[in-house]
Amino acid sequence: MTAPFTFRRAVPADFDELWPILHEVFESGESYPHAPGTTKEEGYRYWIETPTVAIVAILDGRIAGTYYLRPNQVGLGSHVANAGYMVASWARGKGVGRALCLHSIEEAPRHGFKALQFNLVVASNAPAVHLWTSCGFTIIGTIPKAFDHKRLGLTDAYIMHRFV
Amino acid sequence: MTAPFTFRRAVPADFDELWPILHEVFESGESYPHAPGTTKEEGYRYWIETPTVAIVAILDGRIAGTYYLRPNQVGLGSHVANAGYMVASWARGKGVGRALCLHSIEEAPRHGFKALQFNLVVASNAPAVHLWTSCGFTIIGTIPKAFDHKRLGLTDAYIMHRFV
Repeated sequence: MTAPFTFRRAVPADFDELWPILHEVFESGESYPHAPGTTKEEGYRYWIETPTVAIVAILDGRIAGTYYLRPNQVGLGSHVANAGYMVASWARGKGVGRALCLHSIEEAPRHGFKALQFNLVVASNAPAVHLWTSCGFTIIGTIPKAFDHKRLGLTDAYIMHRFV
Repeated sequence: MTAPFTFRRAVPADFDELWPILHEVFESGESYPHAPGTTKEEGYRYWIETPTVAIVAILDGRIAGTYYLRPNQVGLGSHVANAGYMVASWARGKGVGRALCLHSIEEAPRHGFKALQFNLVVASNAPAVHLWTSCGFTIIGTIPKAFDHKRLGLTDAYIMHRFV
């Protein structure tokens, strides 16, 4: 059973609570291309300033997870969204990732998007691949050695896609 | 036989000669995601300001074609380059596209890149797909309906890749 999350748009004032979540993920060097050492300013630009929308999931009054949507290409490719998701470490195992993904599938068409595309799903990140697959995404391509994993070195990455 | 091109780095002063080339390609709405109506300023930012490097091929003293290289991802994905190529309409059929592509394969490692990735090769653009394939690129994925083609509507796009 999934905990009773509420969802709302992220606002700039959320970033002090969001940054520790992003920072931990970036420092791991296991799933996002942002290298360890990525600054708070870079994180803010990536997650708050440049996306079409960023959403937070609230559980017990705290930010349990978040995602963003942005056009994956300009102009004639802008109907396909790119999305990124993160779950706070204290909130893992509560279905937050799945809830965020399902929410994004509902949210994307409200911004005119017709599909979601993930450009770099690290192949070694089996839980993520499993989760996205269970949410209706398919692997449409594999980029060989596309990700310089902190522990594993050069690792394949998947491109995943679903219409919304 | 290929005409005797010379290659050099593009400089900001080249953009007055480059813009008509970019403009014609953008206005066609057939191959680049930049929609018809893309401004010269947007073109400058895309081709000159933000890439790692832009190169021009000179033939008879004029810019016959151009390409750029930039990291396709930040940080842990930045060893894979994205590239874009354009040939001036007056210079078509002279092997400029192939010469640019082969030059980029040599140039990319000088900037630390280990591979080239094209994110959106419009499937209807058969000459391009054929050219990239003949230069050693492979189709590693197909994004359904990823490109809103000016004449054909929503069209599949390929992701193409090769190590360098």
